[in-house]
Amino acid sequence: MAPGPGFSDEKNETLCESESTVYVHNPHLDGMKDDILYHFNLGTSTHNLPAMFGDVKFVCVGGSPWRMKSFIEYIAGELSLEDPKAEYPNICAGTDRYAMYKIGPVLSVSHGMGIPSIAIMLHELIKLLYHARCTDVTIFRIGTSGGLGLEPGTVVVTKQSVDATFLPRLEQVILGNTVVRSTDLDQGLAEELLQCSKDLGQFETVIGNTMCTMDFYEGQARLDGAFCSYTEKDKQDYLTKAYESGVRNIEMESSVFAAMCKLSALKAAVVCVTLLDRQKGDQLISSHEVLHSYQQRPQILVGHLIKKMLQTSASVAVLDKKTVLQAPTT
Amino acid sequence: MAPGPGFSDEKNETLCESESTVYVHNPHLDGMKDDILYHFNLGTSTHNLPAMFGDVKFVCVGGSPWRMKSFIEYIAGELSLEDPKAEYPNICAGTDRYAMYKIGPVLSVSHGMGIPSIAIMLHELIKLLYHARCTDVTIFRIGTSGGLGLEPGTVVVTKQSVDATFLPRLEQVILGNTVVRSTDLDQGLAEELLQCSKDLGQFETVIGNTMCTMDFYEGQARLDGAFCSYTEKDKQDYLTKAYESGVRNIEMESSVFAAMCKLSALKAAVVCVTLLDRQKGDQLISSHEVLHSYQQRPQILVGHLIKKMLQTSASVAVLDKKTVLQAPTT
Repeated sequence: MAPGPGFSDEKNETLCESESTVYVHNPHLDGMKDDILYHFNLGTSTHNLPAMFGDVKFVCVGGSPWRMKSFIEYIAGELSLEDPKAEYPNICAGTDRYAMYKIGPVLSVSHGMGIPSIAIMLHELIKLLYHARCTDVTIFRIGTSGGLGLEPGTVVVTKQSVDATFLPRLEQVILGNTVVRSTDLDQGLAEELLQCSKDLGQFETVIGNTMCTMDFYEGQARLDGAFCSYTEKDKQDYLTKAYESGVRNIEMESSVFAAMCKLSALKAAVVCVTLLDRQKGDQLISSHEVLHSYQQRPQILVGHLIKKMLQTSASVAVLDKKTVLQAPTT
Repeated sequence: MAPGPGFSDEKNETLCESESTVYVHNPHLDGMKDDILYHFNLGTSTHNLPAMFGDVKFVCVGGSPWRMKSFIEYIAGELSLEDPKAEYPNICAGTDRYAMYKIGPVLSVSHGMGIPSIAIMLHELIKLLYHARCTDVTIFRIGTSGGLGLEPGTVVVTKQSVDATFLPRLEQVILGNTVVRSTDLDQGLAEELLQCSKDLGQFETVIGNTMCTMDFYEGQARLDGAFCSYTEKDKQDYLTKAYESGVRNIEMESSVFAAMCKLSALKAAVVCVTLLDRQKGDQLISSHEVLHSYQQRPQILVGHLIKKMLQTSASVAVLDKKTVLQAPTT
């Protein structure tokens, strides 16, 4: 059941070479009669996952359920798939842990805040894509972040996700032992997103490192938490070191997102807007309207790339069809 | 503004000796004109926090927003404070990060899943209680967990919250340096909860150590995640070691809850029901109804203790009043 490197899989052999399966790496799944994706309120014996999700080519994840619903409405419009009467039902309506929406080839899923919360969701999402036999899936995290040396509203596409000591790694504890995982992301996809921003010309986008922390207050050197044992100078020194190491924004989910997507061969990108410049402050004092407009930027950027990729694959499909049709006559 | 040990505070001097303030430990808060509790959508300049929350004596927190709404409905009935027409509005309705409900002296707040998610909430909750000038606050985490060597449905009141190597500590990274914090909880409160369970006689409750992990699948030795590189025997050996060290259940928030409540002098307890015995399986195969009834047990236990504590303090108040009234005649 786990067609990773070194595994063979019957289904894989029937696929075109260009198709890339979503990998699980767990031999135990073979022996399971059913698989309950508990935090999605979905399961292999209760839902026809290939029928529900087999056509998914793009997954977009973000912390807030409201934002992920707003994304599905936005992308439906962009892809001309919207139905004025459509309600875009929450596929995970039976639970309040995560929210999930789908339109055509695009799935939108919320993940809450922090590494553990997104990790639970990704374990179940990767199994869902695997059970649904999805191929060639691209995944984006769209989020908010604190910026370093950037105008608020700037979008950062992550080059490398680094930890609080600026190293590109994720430490995970498995059976009490620390395992270190790579947090590499797809550089080609990051470049494509940067190009989309140039095409759009609506807002500034940069490629930079993203620091992923376990805490929003003390973990990000904020001075406005319930506890703070360091000075303003300590904070500034730390953020300066982060900037000098290449960090351009700070959030709380990118490292495990990068690590798990890499393990499962999902082409992945992290696209976060900066809501403030952390070297100038800690509190989010911009108006609700301004913050809301900033939060739409990662959606616009990712929406533009999805549209572009679908148009390209449609052209390729047309071209393939023409080649096939022309073949007998040449 | 931070009346911790070694600090003096004018407000404190006017309090009775028996009253205990909720502490922040952050000298920087003094210099802030406003404090925006961003993830609650509340703030000191936009809301009258003392008027809204000054009477809070009990805070109950849990992962799921639905469960925290259900708790406020339940406790309203228990304390005979329910209004059949009441809607119990979500105080944080302007955001979807957390949900918050209040009835009389009881506040109910959701915290999502995992240490980072509950830590953000607790930073803002502790500041909220501080700004509202609350005193003598007791806080409970009610949650779900995997059990070890216990019948599913057993409630575990946490003695010590331990990490994945069974040590009672929380490692936090602050300015890139690892800081170790104690995860001690109030033993008297744990004993009182155990006594409540005996009074009720409705379900089994034990006091035991709770292992707090960063991941639900690999971090808890599950065999059913998207990735698994260990055997069934490795899993059983690890869980046996956990059991032998005193661990009776596994969840994902107790360590930072214990550490932050200790730092802020909040009397705290963790009360989680076990949904399955992890030595017998990984998947949650019980019916929705059974799982739902299990999840009500921590609510019932904590609700019973809150009622008992309020009755005791009411008796003390009556007694005090009598003493005062009788004083001139003796």
